[in-house]
Amino acid sequence: MTKQLAGIAASPGIAIARAVVLNAEEYVPVRTTVAQPERETARLQAAIGQARAEIERIRAATEEKLGAEKAAIFEGHLLILEDPDLIETAESRIREEAVNAEYALYETAQTFVEALLALDDETLRERAADVRDICGRIVGILRGAPKRDLSLLSDECIVVAGDLAPSDTAGLNLEAVRGFVTEVGSRTSHSAIMARSLDIPAIVGAGPGIRDIPDGALVAMDAVEGLLLIDPSPEELAAYADKKEKYERRRDELRAWASRPTASADGRRVEIAANIGQLEDVQKALDNGAEAIGLFRTEFLYMGRDRLPTEEEQFRSYKYVLEKMAGKPVVIRTLDVGGDKELPYLGLPRESNPFLGRRALRFCLSRPDVFRPQLRALLRASRFGNLKIMFPMVAVLEELVEAKRLLEEEKQALVSSGVEVADRIEVGIMIEIPSAAVSADLFAEEADFFSIGTNDLIQYTMAADRMNETVSYLYQPYHPSVLRLIRHVIDAAHAAGKWVGVCGEMAGDLTAVPLLLGLGLDEFSMSAGSVLPARERIGSLSHRDWQTLSKQALTLSGSEEVQSFVQARMEGRQDA
Amino acid sequence: MTKQLAGIAASPGIAIARAVVLNAEEYVPVRTTVAQPERETARLQAAIGQARAEIERIRAATEEKLGAEKAAIFEGHLLILEDPDLIETAESRIREEAVNAEYALYETAQTFVEALLALDDETLRERAADVRDICGRIVGILRGAPKRDLSLLSDECIVVAGDLAPSDTAGLNLEAVRGFVTEVGSRTSHSAIMARSLDIPAIVGAGPGIRDIPDGALVAMDAVEGLLLIDPSPEELAAYADKKEKYERRRDELRAWASRPTASADGRRVEIAANIGQLEDVQKALDNGAEAIGLFRTEFLYMGRDRLPTEEEQFRSYKYVLEKMAGKPVVIRTLDVGGDKELPYLGLPRESNPFLGRRALRFCLSRPDVFRPQLRALLRASRFGNLKIMFPMVAVLEELVEAKRLLEEEKQALVSSGVEVADRIEVGIMIEIPSAAVSADLFAEEADFFSIGTNDLIQYTMAADRMNETVSYLYQPYHPSVLRLIRHVIDAAHAAGKWVGVCGEMAGDLTAVPLLLGLGLDEFSMSAGSVLPARERIGSLSHRDWQTLSKQALTLSGSEEVQSFVQARMEGRQDA
Repeated sequence: MTKQLAGIAASPGIAIARAVVLNAEEYVPVRTTVAQPERETARLQAAIGQARAEIERIRAATEEKLGAEKAAIFEGHLLILEDPDLIETAESRIREEAVNAEYALYETAQTFVEALLALDDETLRERAADVRDICGRIVGILRGAPKRDLSLLSDECIVVAGDLAPSDTAGLNLEAVRGFVTEVGSRTSHSAIMARSLDIPAIVGAGPGIRDIPDGALVAMDAVEGLLLIDPSPEELAAYADKKEKYERRRDELRAWASRPTASADGRRVEIAANIGQLEDVQKALDNGAEAIGLFRTEFLYMGRDRLPTEEEQFRSYKYVLEKMAGKPVVIRTLDVGGDKELPYLGLPRESNPFLGRRALRFCLSRPDVFRPQLRALLRASRFGNLKIMFPMVAVLEELVEAKRLLEEEKQALVSSGVEVADRIEVGIMIEIPSAAVSADLFAEEADFFSIGTNDLIQYTMAADRMNETVSYLYQPYHPSVLRLIRHVIDAAHAAGKWVGVCGEMAGDLTAVPLLLGLGLDEFSMSAGSVLPARERIGSLSHRDWQTLSKQALTLSGSEEVQSFVQARMEGRQDA
Repeated sequence: MTKQLAGIAASPGIAIARAVVLNAEEYVPVRTTVAQPERETARLQAAIGQARAEIERIRAATEEKLGAEKAAIFEGHLLILEDPDLIETAESRIREEAVNAEYALYETAQTFVEALLALDDETLRERAADVRDICGRIVGILRGAPKRDLSLLSDECIVVAGDLAPSDTAGLNLEAVRGFVTEVGSRTSHSAIMARSLDIPAIVGAGPGIRDIPDGALVAMDAVEGLLLIDPSPEELAAYADKKEKYERRRDELRAWASRPTASADGRRVEIAANIGQLEDVQKALDNGAEAIGLFRTEFLYMGRDRLPTEEEQFRSYKYVLEKMAGKPVVIRTLDVGGDKELPYLGLPRESNPFLGRRALRFCLSRPDVFRPQLRALLRASRFGNLKIMFPMVAVLEELVEAKRLLEEEKQALVSSGVEVADRIEVGIMIEIPSAAVSADLFAEEADFFSIGTNDLIQYTMAADRMNETVSYLYQPYHPSVLRLIRHVIDAAHAAGKWVGVCGEMAGDLTAVPLLLGLGLDEFSMSAGSVLPARERIGSLSHRDWQTLSKQALTLSGSEEVQSFVQARMEGRQDA
């Protein structure tokens, strides 16, 4: 009988194939007493040598397939192998307790992992996963059951596993693997992120039920809904095949929009850009036909590590994105730390209300030692493409003036030391604080462009933490208050001859798109996956009609009324 | 030589008198072994009896002098004396360890106090102070050094003490005591609050330096600046006498405004109301000539206790204020819990950003079991005066509609069970969330009035926690964004024929007053102490001029520019 499981749709798609089941349960070595501990330490050293060779091979393959950035995690693995603490502790356990190498290494690794996890830090949690990954590999070699090399899978299959270690996902043979399913994980866990960047269907967090999936069982997965059928009936199989075909046809239809310019049915041209947060997202943005990068979140350079990135590291990342976009606009936002994004190594004080605290530009202006190197890296990268610099969390004009002053100072210093810097770099601000929206006319004199960060703007306008479930009903993108602020920002910018984008989730929201188009928005910046549906939607709209309709929407009494109003108009248009 | 000390100005005024120094250091009893423990328990019981009599006497005197509310703390002291845990633990220590009564009681009390303080709860902290106060009294009786009865002081003096216990401040003989100074404490500590309600100069938190003040030393205190001179020179004494005279002359000048109506120089009438948070504040509001209560914060009924107040308790408080105001308007705000105001007994979940969390009306709508009794108490009290009900933290219209629905339901239920309710009760909202300000026109159709809560409105408009020092520079009442929102609220209300007040600190800010008057504000509600200076300021302004000037201020680029603009205009007027 068919068994059905549900999990988190981590990377969309539909797949039907036989399961390749990796050991969902961890192997726990048994402790045995050994007569010759020196033989065990030698075995351990040999296994480490073999592991090193395997990792080197995977690293090289990953670099070829996914680039140097993705391969970098394996440098980390190699470093763990060099860590004297870990290996020497295991060796002294072997000698002192006269135990087998598997047991000694496993136990030592467990202690390290627990110590790392106890510190409750994102970076260290990832490091714990790496220690577990590498020690699991060595234990496998020691017990004569080496890790299955997923790059060797050759038949079409769906991989089923407890979790996929970094070395597993990096090694997946994409010619054969149609998708994967894991027992644990969330949308933001490593394997979920990898699935999206590899563009293969994935369901994570499907729970312990996956342990009962027999190796070789037929599996149908719907990673749009997060559903999984094991041993489907012929009818179910047909239904899934149909779903798959429709999904892929729709995907292809959308792909046809990738190479078209963005314009309304009556010819109003706007720009659709992508938001990116990782270097590998640039390719995805281009694949989806983004006309620009409307928001490059530079936080990834600062997070998941134990010290500030150097100016050089930053420069290389910015240059990479600018070159890859080949002259298309790239809006790079300066560091937005604080709020829900912590950098433990800065040792910042805890705040009672971090969303109302010393975030983003507020932090950067108070820490020129952090801010100036980022500004220098941006300036140095500017000549490799079409760079626009954007400051986040601006509330009052003085903040923008001060940030521009620092930027100009760094520019003069670079130029006078002979470094080439682009002549003209647009400098804009995020509009995400009500004050900035209400006084947009004042900012329009100092900023070259605005990008409305609707996620935060809605949160502050409603005074409701968007991460707090008990007030999430107040996160209302269509509320007249929000739309009025957006209109005011657009009108103020246009009056000063400046352009305006939206880089919050609203930009890719198909109900919001007609309103934003009608209000006169110039640029819509969204996650790469939303670009094509949004372009299609804009292509179906009359800009002239929505200029009138959006003004009407602003006079309605609430969010629900606006939503119904837009939906009724959209349906009316489709019927006509 | 003169010695100078500085502390926190807790209650304004200037005083010069000889010091009466109470023991600044706590007496710690020495442990002695006793032959007849039963004699010690008898001594303890006798001392408790004497303490009870003393407290009864203070309670009665306090009730006569300050009313039943203030006397209630002594009921609490009497209850502590009844607490079997405390006394029985001390007694069993005497018996089991054969120790002296002073030591046994002191040690037992210490344990209780530490346990209470460890729980880090405002109510329990106060209870700890009470336990310390009462046990100190008993130990004093036991050792033959009973507490100095401050009601017996007969010569003019300034009391100098480590801290003043509740029983000390309540018993102060105001005919003799010209002011007091304490080593510890803050503006919100018990003794500071009492000083303000007794209207005597007080400096708290003056530090350990006060221990060196000899009893009987001449002291000059400036509780406006928070300065203290011990053994001042004749010149210093003369300067302080002069300061005192000027201060008192100015105070009398202001008092002349208490009985006048509030009007601008060119005859525009507005209303000055007082914000209150305790029943005893009503008298102070009336003494200062407040024409209404513009904000009655009902939180005090819910805080500093271990369970919800009953409907009956609330009813009595509301009735008291309404009757005392004798037909003058009283705006009572429904419970504003959450944010920085916790009610531990409700066991609410911790929030990452409490200021953006389930505060105030959001909480009340989710807990009708808490909200409905308050609404009933308000409705029942309505026939005793001129009640207006106000809902805090409204972001979207649906919230107001729902709150009004609940109020109407309770009204119908009361009326049909024969309870008399005022025919017409105005129902208004706080405007403190940007959304409510931006959409004030939508709310004006459902609300009878608005009261702008500038403290929160500024915090949300700037996305800056007003309690967080690192972003306090963004708390900018004069920022054009804030002023524009205020103007929009006033215009929207007036277009619908409704009135608007401000009940944040801005209402009593002498720089903001001209702007608010010019923008057309109808009601200014502030702490009682600000009423007279504000009325004097309004009396000096031309409403017509400020109508024009406030519009100009809205176009300036920032807070500092607005502040300079107002100050220049004010000075120009004085020169003219």
